[in-house]
Amino acid sequence: MTASSPTSDRPVLRMRPKTDARRIRHGFPWVYANEVVLDRRTKALAPGTLAVLEDANRSPLGLVAINPLSKIVGRVLDRDPAMQVNRDWVAARVSRALALRERLFDAPFYRLIHAEADGLPGVIIDRFGDLAVIQPNAAWAEAHLDLLASVLLEVVGVSHLIKNASGRTRALEGLDDQTEVLAGQMPQAPIPVPMNGATYMADVAGGQKTGLFFDQRPNHAFAQSVAQGARVLDVFSHVGGFGLAALAGGAGHATCVDGSAAALDLAGQGAVAMGVSDRFAARQGDAFDVLSALQEEEAQFDVVVCDPPAFAPSKQALDAGLRAYERIARLAAPLVAEGGILGLCSCSHAADLSKFRTASVRGIGRAGRAPALLHTGFAGPDHPQLPQLAESGYLKALFFRL
Amino acid sequence: MTASSPTSDRPVLRMRPKTDARRIRHGFPWVYANEVVLDRRTKALAPGTLAVLEDANRSPLGLVAINPLSKIVGRVLDRDPAMQVNRDWVAARVSRALALRERLFDAPFYRLIHAEADGLPGVIIDRFGDLAVIQPNAAWAEAHLDLLASVLLEVVGVSHLIKNASGRTRALEGLDDQTEVLAGQMPQAPIPVPMNGATYMADVAGGQKTGLFFDQRPNHAFAQSVAQGARVLDVFSHVGGFGLAALAGGAGHATCVDGSAAALDLAGQGAVAMGVSDRFAARQGDAFDVLSALQEEEAQFDVVVCDPPAFAPSKQALDAGLRAYERIARLAAPLVAEGGILGLCSCSHAADLSKFRTASVRGIGRAGRAPALLHTGFAGPDHPQLPQLAESGYLKALFFRL
Repeated sequence: MTASSPTSDRPVLRMRPKTDARRIRHGFPWVYANEVVLDRRTKALAPGTLAVLEDANRSPLGLVAINPLSKIVGRVLDRDPAMQVNRDWVAARVSRALALRERLFDAPFYRLIHAEADGLPGVIIDRFGDLAVIQPNAAWAEAHLDLLASVLLEVVGVSHLIKNASGRTRALEGLDDQTEVLAGQMPQAPIPVPMNGATYMADVAGGQKTGLFFDQRPNHAFAQSVAQGARVLDVFSHVGGFGLAALAGGAGHATCVDGSAAALDLAGQGAVAMGVSDRFAARQGDAFDVLSALQEEEAQFDVVVCDPPAFAPSKQALDAGLRAYERIARLAAPLVAEGGILGLCSCSHAADLSKFRTASVRGIGRAGRAPALLHTGFAGPDHPQLPQLAESGYLKALFFRL
Repeated sequence: MTASSPTSDRPVLRMRPKTDARRIRHGFPWVYANEVVLDRRTKALAPGTLAVLEDANRSPLGLVAINPLSKIVGRVLDRDPAMQVNRDWVAARVSRALALRERLFDAPFYRLIHAEADGLPGVIIDRFGDLAVIQPNAAWAEAHLDLLASVLLEVVGVSHLIKNASGRTRALEGLDDQTEVLAGQMPQAPIPVPMNGATYMADVAGGQKTGLFFDQRPNHAFAQSVAQGARVLDVFSHVGGFGLAALAGGAGHATCVDGSAAALDLAGQGAVAMGVSDRFAARQGDAFDVLSALQEEEAQFDVVVCDPPAFAPSKQALDAGLRAYERIARLAAPLVAEGGILGLCSCSHAADLSKFRTASVRGIGRAGRAPALLHTGFAGPDHPQLPQLAESGYLKALFFRL
């Protein structure tokens, strides 16, 4: 098949009169349900069906994958409405993504595919050496899973491929939450992952709660750059993200705080693998409670980093979320020694950089401390974003000197 | 003298009724001329005079330095209105700033004092080993220059101290532009500066045009991280900022473009000092012209970085500035090989991140390329900012994969 194949056999998704087709022409990758003509025939299409997107005047805009069940009713796969989504098409996108990561990183541990910006809308693929975890978070990807899997095995050369179906957005697409092994085997032990000179233990079988997030890599690196000889507190540490990076950077001691005993156990295993377990401590509990307890103990640290879950995952949760970020800052600031560093992170889509910074600065001020902002960081370069999708810029990290 | 010294001998700068004193209480460091009572006595005060700032109800807000000639009529030096600006006061601020830089960097080459956020309003001090360059860009600093100089020599231990008076803001403060040697000697040769494994030649005697900017350090590092084996083009290279960093990171070849023959000569000297002159080329000329010429030559690079001077230094210049940023992006994008990296920088106060990104993306789009944003960077951590002064966040760097 070639790009010039006839398209007449494909259904058509037509934009309504007075909708903004220019946005699509300029690279915006999503078509919302309220922008298109949703007749009975379109609604009856199976989720993941490929279609030709047309503007209100029947000019073709590109090839889209349709999901009548989703608010994002169309995802642009290609500018060419006649393009075939076959082995060559997927391989070109995966090869291009792989080339970037191989340029960026020495070891094969990274986010390989970051959805729209890597040309595979709704698809997330993380690589752990010769194993990859795919999250097909859009209906078209679920429908083409065999194709995606075979190309991954061939082009990337991984031996093991796991489908992780725990992504929140799958429910919005009407997809199941069944995790399964697509190739090779489910690993029986955590996978050691090298990053910034630290070793993280990733339990990919356990899913997101104990897997690994690659997005904080450059922010871990910044914390590491100020960690020499420091007493470090890593709050919401998960498997030891900031704490182990700091220890790899010569921190004198790191305490990891998390609500999950399983995550802290993996952090401890990472410290053992790094040979730094004598400088590592774990403290299980609710982060707010532990921060308060540490203040009562008059504990002091040279570097404190808080990397909480998304407190403001939606616009509705924004106000409450910003109050929670402010509270984290207020509770963490007293634990920072004079002249020390406080790192505060947000992975909330709804809280933009300015709002998150304001909440953080207010919390620090309420603790009676005067911050200077040293560094603002985002997700690493293996998490590219389409400029048209501000939403993909979810991760923010602010480092202050107090 | 102690903090409890009587303040009655100090003049008073009083805020007008209905002005916002809370902003000052919350850490904003500037008082504008239209916020205070500027009577004849206040106007007659010598620029740099220390005074007690009071709100409209005569409650003291802090110690300010007055400059009746400036729009920023008061700069808050201390929350304590009775504080003495003496050796101990300056030494505490310099020591705190020094401790941060020593924590951040292995070698003594950095911005040591970044004005307000380092507690010395309007004062910039760059360190080059045992030489420091001070820019006293506020009247109080000019008035206290002997004190600042003696503390620097004592606390930091530098042997040579140059006063650089070329800062644009000095004219707004009514200060001269006389550069002079405050201690030791003016160096007779460029100073080799190690940064990111590269060697830059800084001609501090020649002033800003051929000195060195430390602010791009982390952005140089990002370019370096994608430079292995790459053909690199560094436009507006100055003394070789991105080009030499890329060569230190294993770039196959780097071409530096600048309008200044003196700057390119220093870049070439840096390449010689690094032993990479066989992989270095310089091209003098207007950057727009050179970009157009390279396109006619059908030149292709794996990494292109453009770091122009501030095209939008003021709000009045914003629209023209954004058009210039768009034009740079449009001219540079065709020179980037498929899958290559384009880095675009702005040091314009007036163009915020969102506006600069929009202009850049539009220019890339006009060149027919589809960008994915990999990395957003700002000035390095030796350029801390007060959260209250958004203006200090002037430097933005965007790296796209095309």
